[in-house]
Amino acid sequence: MTRQKERSRFPEIGDGSGLGPPDAFYREEVALALRNRGMPLEGLRYPTTPTGMHYLLVHFDIPYIEAGEWRLEVAGMLKKPVSLSLEDLRSRPAVRMPVTMECAGNGRALLEPRPVSQPWHLEAVGTAEWTGTPLRDVLLEAGVKEEAGEILFTGLDRGVQGDEVQDYQRSLTVDEAMREDVLLVYEMNGRPLEPQHGYPVRLLVPGWYGMTSVKWLARIEAIRGPFEGYQMVGSYRYSQNADDLGEPVTLQKVRSLMVPPGIPDFVTRVRLVEAGEVTLRGRAWAGRTEVAGVEVSADGGDSWSKASLEEPVGSVAWRGWRYVWPARPGRYQLCVRARDSEGNMQPFDQPWTYQGMGNNMVQRVDVIVE
Amino acid sequence: MTRQKERSRFPEIGDGSGLGPPDAFYREEVALALRNRGMPLEGLRYPTTPTGMHYLLVHFDIPYIEAGEWRLEVAGMLKKPVSLSLEDLRSRPAVRMPVTMECAGNGRALLEPRPVSQPWHLEAVGTAEWTGTPLRDVLLEAGVKEEAGEILFTGLDRGVQGDEVQDYQRSLTVDEAMREDVLLVYEMNGRPLEPQHGYPVRLLVPGWYGMTSVKWLARIEAIRGPFEGYQMVGSYRYSQNADDLGEPVTLQKVRSLMVPPGIPDFVTRVRLVEAGEVTLRGRAWAGRTEVAGVEVSADGGDSWSKASLEEPVGSVAWRGWRYVWPARPGRYQLCVRARDSEGNMQPFDQPWTYQGMGNNMVQRVDVIVE
Repeated sequence: MTRQKERSRFPEIGDGSGLGPPDAFYREEVALALRNRGMPLEGLRYPTTPTGMHYLLVHFDIPYIEAGEWRLEVAGMLKKPVSLSLEDLRSRPAVRMPVTMECAGNGRALLEPRPVSQPWHLEAVGTAEWTGTPLRDVLLEAGVKEEAGEILFTGLDRGVQGDEVQDYQRSLTVDEAMREDVLLVYEMNGRPLEPQHGYPVRLLVPGWYGMTSVKWLARIEAIRGPFEGYQMVGSYRYSQNADDLGEPVTLQKVRSLMVPPGIPDFVTRVRLVEAGEVTLRGRAWAGRTEVAGVEVSADGGDSWSKASLEEPVGSVAWRGWRYVWPARPGRYQLCVRARDSEGNMQPFDQPWTYQGMGNNMVQRVDVIVE
Repeated sequence: MTRQKERSRFPEIGDGSGLGPPDAFYREEVALALRNRGMPLEGLRYPTTPTGMHYLLVHFDIPYIEAGEWRLEVAGMLKKPVSLSLEDLRSRPAVRMPVTMECAGNGRALLEPRPVSQPWHLEAVGTAEWTGTPLRDVLLEAGVKEEAGEILFTGLDRGVQGDEVQDYQRSLTVDEAMREDVLLVYEMNGRPLEPQHGYPVRLLVPGWYGMTSVKWLARIEAIRGPFEGYQMVGSYRYSQNADDLGEPVTLQKVRSLMVPPGIPDFVTRVRLVEAGEVTLRGRAWAGRTEVAGVEVSADGGDSWSKASLEEPVGSVAWRGWRYVWPARPGRYQLCVRARDSEGNMQPFDQPWTYQGMGNNMVQRVDVIVE
């Protein structure tokens, strides 16, 4: 995948590829951070993230959609293509489940050198109760033909990325799309989706990073595949440079985060903590696998103590953890790390990739105990 | 107001005062932009902003509050101090009104040199339907004593700013606090407040910039005044340098914004527009005064054309505007400006202040028409 600089439509501004300076962020990165939003980490207190606190990444613009005029076209290599209204979907069997969603670029801005894109630190995560109807049954009724290898999902958001004008599109293999927990979702936390979360209907693929759960769904198409659109081969890759195609980004990795304890400084966010027994708490998740353990360090990662675990909020959702820290006056760097049931552990130093995808480095929180 | 550098508790990190480099943003500014959130400007399409799309500024942390344990203390120079539960407030006469709220620092990051704080571009605005009960009647029943000059509002958010450990506190004169439209609010868009918007109860002062509408209210106190806490004299001032106290920031100024037309580039947000008749639209507001006119320029402010106005959404809420632009191929800088009923017009070049408060410069949108 070679970037074609000579064909850039915005040569005077740059196309956002390349790497940023070490200690300074571009205005374009700040503008993205102001549009997209993280979950403030104190939001880890809630087993289900309030809707307006959930992280959000919008590639292009939030489209304005009148639900009465909206249809979902299910087409392509099918025996019985179908066009569905919102009411059609709502009248089908409903499934409600809590799902932890995370952006594939979470942690990107902590890499060095820094890939230039949405400059996430650690907050691109959230857990909502999603309600929808299984895609599997819609596909079974439509009859996916033998020659189809993938299902292609097209959203109504449209824009330019990597010099390509495009609708936002992602594909899944037919096997993935037929999993029972893949849903066509029309409610978040018991209410119709807000526009920025995909109203009227979005895809939900539990366990994958968020880019797969296409918002503002317009079309579902059975294709031979593999689909090679920008969001499959130009982005969401574990690559080492602009010319390296790399491997595709897929499932969420194991990760834990803590609620920063004490009180913050407004600008620096450094924490001031009262000496005494401080209950550190947070949540951990591992995509489709399970969180097997969480450990906390109060000395910047030199020594680790085991945290206690709560039951998971759902089968593909985070679980709470707690650890009582005897805090004495001084300066500390608190860290938390989790491992999953397959033995994977969060890295202390993040292996670097060119697009800054799939990071799960250990969180570090600077605190002053008084 | 002299900044006391020698007493800084966080000397190695800085206290966020001072000015930033011209073309690069500090990591701390990016971290603030990831916590706080703007309304993506395509959200101007909605007369009432969906809850999760509304702008949000949180000074410290979002406090975790159990409504059953929460009380609002109404105290100080009163004949009959009172302690109110959420149910007490909900059982009082209810008022529901749409109000346009804007952060006093909106536009700060467009100043040169740039004050270092939450790096807003133009998106720190939103209009919600708020439901609450008039503060006036609570104060009348409690009987504010003659010697009280101000009402002090204390939130449950606590942190460090300007080297001071503080609860978030702002005051109003008794006259301002007794206005009929000042509300103790418990619902936003017909639902209980989400935690980040002040659950269970916040103050709402229509027409003022947002810092006055104290979230997570814990205490309302009649005091002699004037209250000189950090958020009154250390921040929210129209000042020229660190030693200049300046005038206090109070009411919103006239402002208009447009929905950027066409489709965006993901990173640069430059717009691609199809040639033809393009309906430009947006909203304008003016705090407690009225928007008297909106004009649009397609040539970077050299010439202006009158936009048509819709009825205001409410007495202290924005009104829509539209303008049909005959777009021909080329590159353009679109601008919009409003004037209020008192003859104030948005400036093209923003007068600079040290804290970057109360900006209302003209919005500029770069577009490529093809």
